Amino acid sequence: MAQQSVTSYDVAHLAGVSQPTVSRAFDPNGNISPRTREKVLEAAKQLGYEPNAIARGLTTQRTDIVGIIMGNMTRSHFYPPVLVEFTRRLQSLGKQVLLFNSHETRPVDEIMPRIMSYRVDALIIASTTPGRELIDRFTNKGTPVVMLNRIVPETSANAVSSDNVAGARMVADALLDAGHKKLGFLAGVGVTSTNTLRKKGFVDRLHERGCQNILIDQGEYTYDSGYEAGLRLLDRDDPPDGIFCAADIMALGLMDAARFKLGIKIPDELSVIGYDDIPMAKWPTYGLTTIHQSVTKMVETAVDLITPSKDELKTGQVILLPGELVYRSSARKPNKQE
Amino acid sequence: MAQQSVTSYDVAHLAGVSQPTVSRAFDPNGNISPRTREKVLEAAKQLGYEPNAIARGLTTQRTDIVGIIMGNMTRSHFYPPVLVEFTRRLQSLGKQVLLFNSHETRPVDEIMPRIMSYRVDALIIASTTPGRELIDRFTNKGTPVVMLNRIVPETSANAVSSDNVAGARMVADALLDAGHKKLGFLAGVGVTSTNTLRKKGFVDRLHERGCQNILIDQGEYTYDSGYEAGLRLLDRDDPPDGIFCAADIMALGLMDAARFKLGIKIPDELSVIGYDDIPMAKWPTYGLTTIHQSVTKMVETAVDLITPSKDELKTGQVILLPGELVYRSSARKPNKQE
Repeated sequence: MAQQSVTSYDVAHLAGVSQPTVSRAFDPNGNISPRTREKVLEAAKQLGYEPNAIARGLTTQRTDIVGIIMGNMTRSHFYPPVLVEFTRRLQSLGKQVLLFNSHETRPVDEIMPRIMSYRVDALIIASTTPGRELIDRFTNKGTPVVMLNRIVPETSANAVSSDNVAGARMVADALLDAGHKKLGFLAGVGVTSTNTLRKKGFVDRLHERGCQNILIDQGEYTYDSGYEAGLRLLDRDDPPDGIFCAADIMALGLMDAARFKLGIKIPDELSVIGYDDIPMAKWPTYGLTTIHQSVTKMVETAVDLITPSKDELKTGQVILLPGELVYRSSARKPNKQE
Repeated sequence: MAQQSVTSYDVAHLAGVSQPTVSRAFDPNGNISPRTREKVLEAAKQLGYEPNAIARGLTTQRTDIVGIIMGNMTRSHFYPPVLVEFTRRLQSLGKQVLLFNSHETRPVDEIMPRIMSYRVDALIIASTTPGRELIDRFTNKGTPVVMLNRIVPETSANAVSSDNVAGARMVADALLDAGHKKLGFLAGVGVTSTNTLRKKGFVDRLHERGCQNILIDQGEYTYDSGYEAGLRLLDRDDPPDGIFCAADIMALGLMDAARFKLGIKIPDELSVIGYDDIPMAKWPTYGLTTIHQSVTKMVETAVDLITPSKDELKTGQVILLPGELVYRSSARKPNKQE
């Protein structure tokens, strides 16, 4: 059923050049005279030849494929727009995204050999954390690696992250300035730097300002876990009156538990502040006050790191992007003192 | 900076076999004796050789890359989980997803040559509609194509779709059986089959049952467009008391416009039914009654079509998956007559 494809050898024959010359004609950076390129392209057109990106990857050592590993992409609702933005931006640079899914409960390291076998030009890692040695195997081969919102010390990977500590400190100040005294923090899962740094920034700043009364609970970066944690944090005699959630998606679940299950008025009886600024945060039913992270800026910065001019491989760079506190209606404002 | 890679020729030399034998050893379907394969794998291990999926693609005519084109993936909130499920399922079959983004306002056909150049083993097209000729170029080369939730007549592509007509007829019956008389339909964008068939099923069934009083408006498969359409449909002297939205995401926007902007009680004064069953539909603030489409089933069916046993290329098959009406709290139930 498959038609016989026209090969670069057929084109070379018709154009009267060698096969490597055909490859160079189709490589935007190929070293070839304009006149020869035109001759090759004309022959290719006559024969209906389509250049083979895969085969070109073997000769140019460039596949125009960028690997992206995403773990649990759909849970927090922050990463799908990130993926779309990467796909758009890389595609406009002539590169495509090859997607890898890291298993929920198994280490991401298991799939790294598979990723290596595809000879990706660069690797982007989002919402999952591979081991240092595996990252080094990529950078040792000249393949740049960027981690998003994860910082692993002493690794050759680059990192682009929201400035989680600074953002969380802003939230602490906002809640204290609004007159809140009993504060809560809803953490995300485990030992990720996103989670650790948001907690550290928030708790340290509260301590600096003399607030020791902090109730801490943990969710899993999902709506449901935020809802459940909301019940645990708020269904007690002495509940907090201001809560910082390490991710918007958990804040939405917590708000719904507070409003619809416990009858708590927001923001009159409870201020809720999130982190991320996912699309739902600005829906009128939520109006979530949150730290805005710019998806566009994050992707742009990451793409710059993996597509450097010339052959300069970037390693170990950590770029922190400042977040911005966006006030909506889920938290009392500092000037509205009781 | 890049290390010199060990090649399959080095492995062949050490194992005392030919280079094509090394390729066959790393191909799960390669024709090779267990003893020779073991010898090759042992040599590869000694040298630290990693098989090159890209190079293998040239010899086996199989790249283990499946292209997925997604247009506006994040808007409806239905497709990100679909993409995750495809990535998971294909990865477990030893294949990876290469992602292509179709431009919002330009025809998807523009990127088809790029997709061809990557020599994908199969192509999945979601939420966008390419021309017939381009699809035929893939199937003529033996590359199976599956469209999701889009049906293009007389094409060689396969299609896996929710049974939109049957689902929309169920919604019409549900609203009429609950006693609603003035009905509204909020359509999605343009000429997609999803949109056309959901409208056709709904309107035809209402006409069959003698209901001619149907108000029709149009959104763009986004929350904001649903909110705006909600204001247009409901802020009038004689508003509909039951509305079917062609996608959940628009239903959520419409509900918020009704509740928070116009003060309309749901479901007492207005029943709203959606289509898709996205994760937010079951959040307590919405409790959206909707037609459930199974992402797992849809992806499983599509993957079966592109990974047939043997070399049997499937073309032009249309598989409709039945949806299911899930009652939550946004619509009155048939037995709760007024």
